[in-house]
Amino acid sequence: MEKVNIEQKLSLFSDYGNQRIVGELNGQHVKLVKQKGEFIWHKHDNEDELFYVIKGSLKMEFRDKTVVVHENEFLIVPRGVEHKPVADEEVSIMLFEPATTINTGNVESELTRHVLDKI
Amino acid sequence: MEKVNIEQKLSLFSDYGNQRIVGELNGQHVKLVKQKGEFIWHKHDNEDELFYVIKGSLKMEFRDKTVVVHENEFLIVPRGVEHKPVADEEVSIMLFEPATTINTGNVESELTRHVLDKI
Repeated sequence: MEKVNIEQKLSLFSDYGNQRIVGELNGQHVKLVKQKGEFIWHKHDNEDELFYVIKGSLKMEFRDKTVVVHENEFLIVPRGVEHKPVADEEVSIMLFEPATTINTGNVESELTRHVLDKI
Repeated sequence: MEKVNIEQKLSLFSDYGNQRIVGELNGQHVKLVKQKGEFIWHKHDNEDELFYVIKGSLKMEFRDKTVVVHENEFLIVPRGVEHKPVADEEVSIMLFEPATTINTGNVESELTRHVLDKI
């Protein structure tokens, strides 16, 4: 039972789009990721996703609107809803979502990661 | 699909020990609570709990040790583990846990709240 310091965990990596698991509870994962640039359009058929912005800003594009999420704000993207995360500048995000969640959802691409490191 | 600003939500209440629901996903709740003073010893038989400190510090007492959680740190308390949250000064906490979680776990007391407001 060790506490987790977000800044310390973020200092351990600098690559973009590579989620790390920093916590696990009730079948859910707490993950950290750094992002810059455009991710791909995708959706998750069975998982709702929570994006909590730790540092920077995240532009979440939907088919009909865009929501800009700033530091200390979060956005829940319900299952089934297509979305594309975009970051003009580097953003650090904490994710809460089921352990079954794949980062690119229904789309298999070179960005897809099936195995994540725990840090 | 609205984003949630933590500071804005925290500005909506000032009472201690009264959790508010600010998000719901995958059968889990995201909750905010302000705490000052000692809570009671309790455990949750079926739920792991995540305590993320937004502002201030939280002293989590266990039967065999104490973990002090500061701002931008979190602690996961596994199901079945007795714990007592203590805050010498006011602390604002974000909780992530199953929607079935009762704040005082296995103990029914005047602090128990079975119904929480969504804000």
